Amino acid sequence: MRPVSIVGFGIIPVMKQHDLSLREMGVRVIHQAMESAGVDRVDALYAGNMLADELQGQKHIATLLASEAGLVGVEALQVRAATATGAAALRMAYFAVASAEADLAIAVGVEKMSSAPATPALAKALDAEEEVPTGATLISQNARLMQMYLERYDVPYEAFANFAINAHRNAMTVPHALFHKEVSVQDVLNSRIVNPPLRLYDCSPICDGAAAVVLAPADQARAFTDSPVRILASSVATDYFRVDDRPDPLELRAARLSVMKAMRAANVHRKDVDFFEVHDAFSIMACLILEACGFAERGQGWRLAQEGEIFREGNIPIATMGGLKARGHPIGATAIYQTAEIVMQLTDRAGPNQIPNARIAMLQSVGGAAATVLTHIFARQERV
Amino acid sequence: MRPVSIVGFGIIPVMKQHDLSLREMGVRVIHQAMESAGVDRVDALYAGNMLADELQGQKHIATLLASEAGLVGVEALQVRAATATGAAALRMAYFAVASAEADLAIAVGVEKMSSAPATPALAKALDAEEEVPTGATLISQNARLMQMYLERYDVPYEAFANFAINAHRNAMTVPHALFHKEVSVQDVLNSRIVNPPLRLYDCSPICDGAAAVVLAPADQARAFTDSPVRILASSVATDYFRVDDRPDPLELRAARLSVMKAMRAANVHRKDVDFFEVHDAFSIMACLILEACGFAERGQGWRLAQEGEIFREGNIPIATMGGLKARGHPIGATAIYQTAEIVMQLTDRAGPNQIPNARIAMLQSVGGAAATVLTHIFARQERV
Repeated sequence: MRPVSIVGFGIIPVMKQHDLSLREMGVRVIHQAMESAGVDRVDALYAGNMLADELQGQKHIATLLASEAGLVGVEALQVRAATATGAAALRMAYFAVASAEADLAIAVGVEKMSSAPATPALAKALDAEEEVPTGATLISQNARLMQMYLERYDVPYEAFANFAINAHRNAMTVPHALFHKEVSVQDVLNSRIVNPPLRLYDCSPICDGAAAVVLAPADQARAFTDSPVRILASSVATDYFRVDDRPDPLELRAARLSVMKAMRAANVHRKDVDFFEVHDAFSIMACLILEACGFAERGQGWRLAQEGEIFREGNIPIATMGGLKARGHPIGATAIYQTAEIVMQLTDRAGPNQIPNARIAMLQSVGGAAATVLTHIFARQERV
Repeated sequence: MRPVSIVGFGIIPVMKQHDLSLREMGVRVIHQAMESAGVDRVDALYAGNMLADELQGQKHIATLLASEAGLVGVEALQVRAATATGAAALRMAYFAVASAEADLAIAVGVEKMSSAPATPALAKALDAEEEVPTGATLISQNARLMQMYLERYDVPYEAFANFAINAHRNAMTVPHALFHKEVSVQDVLNSRIVNPPLRLYDCSPICDGAAAVVLAPADQARAFTDSPVRILASSVATDYFRVDDRPDPLELRAARLSVMKAMRAANVHRKDVDFFEVHDAFSIMACLILEACGFAERGQGWRLAQEGEIFREGNIPIATMGGLKARGHPIGATAIYQTAEIVMQLTDRAGPNQIPNARIAMLQSVGGAAATVLTHIFARQERV
């Protein structure tokens, strides 16, 4: 297993409805990523996409993108883990380079959710036999978790407001973010109830986006860029598929297992993590992730928000470029956007959003109702 | 990169309509495969499935299967390459063990095509913008290739009959095969025209099936089984996505590239290959694969059928347990069935279908209209 680095990335602005087609979005970021790495060829391309089967009628997306991008001949496969799909593509690219099957691999994520109603297709991340027939969707499952949390720990709804406020504030200065609008506690409290107790600002938006990263062996990384970023660890863990089967639905076991595996592989303590790109598809999910990963005791995650520890100047900044909530959550592309943002942070290219002296970053991606969780840990790669 | 072996497998009979649900089929073969390797836990599970999005409303299949099989916690991801999806799952399991990210990995393929009409979903392996709107399906594209072939090389339709005859004869003695019915030249010539010039016996059937294999490091393989099989190589290559964009549609460039990569990695010459499990979803595809892989000159692949070289006693036996045509082609499971059959052959457990002294086998899997092609090469693993 050889060390792996990111040597280039490409992103397009997240939009409610992109003018480009799904494939055009993908091709655009593939070309950007390759250009930033200074290469005109890669060995392999791994594509993350969750919804094209239903929304674009397309089930063979990796090879389609490779072909349209002029990469005819290269290896191309699609990888999926429901709403964590982008991270799955990153993991497969990491496998390919780490195992020396590829010297240069692209992980590309692409999703165009504006083509048709996405919610029914998104619900297929849940159990089609046991959950969906009862009316469950990803939104309703997260609403249940939040209700359970508020009741068990006797926390007021307002305690979660800072998850939205932080995300929107951070997105203000991010050109590729979907939203550029600060929100106040009152905005959050007055926003429309989507599925009680979830309000609009607790939820990430339906949107279109694409992002790509180029991976290379760490010991060759500086041949492609003067600002490579090491991937210190990549891991996946799972939980009981159905929320109702879990001993305690408020304990994200897959998140805990996945982060433990990754921290052991990276030899990184949670105190070493300078910022954490969490899967804040819903405020409650960000809160539960912070607890599962040990940044807060059980039942105390909301305090990290309320006390501002998740802000850029706090102890454990999250959603530093807007997160899923305000940069946007184009499913299959999300984790690749986050990876690109982590690269910007770790190479001092995050502009006004820069976390000073950031050296180690963590990314966690949640599939479905946290049945599948991937963790990646990254580090600034110094010149030798 | 460490060498990898197969140390167990599980298969259920391929059926037109299975009593078991998709998940039950998957769980059954996962348990069988683990039992045959003598393990009650694996590190990772990679699932191959193409059609559950539409046919079972399920998009998070790997973790669902892991959870239902009692493997809560393990890594689980889904991998896809359209109709070559089973081989993509095998490749990811190979990556995981080769890179030492996992010591024991399962590749499971599962498809239940009987739940709803599968043809529209299958067509999503083609280009949704440029091909499907013109009425193209996988069947019509293969019909076009066959028509082109018959005309260009002035070959009579009957020259292809032995592809079906060989597959059906071989399946006669295979308990897990879908069909147990010998067919004659007359049967083939009299069979219904599906899409001219394709007749019924040129096409693989719509069916249900599941298969799983367990992978382990080669140097630990005998701890799990006395009959391990080495994976000598795994490769993927692609072509122009759309058939019409290819300089010569009758040249399967992805098949040629993929087999060259695999033969170089395995250091195996085509003359070393004792039998070849091809992707005979259509007779023309088997013929074009044999040519692309160098077993016949261009325009001469049909001769290998007509002269009996593809029979078990021939120089390059194909479909030794019935192939896609007669064992059946439950898409996401197909390449895993073929892998299990290769394991049987290479460990002298193929019964009446045994290829005597088989030492090296090749497997090729075709995604869509040959836009993505995977090749795997296997070898009998001797006791050291």
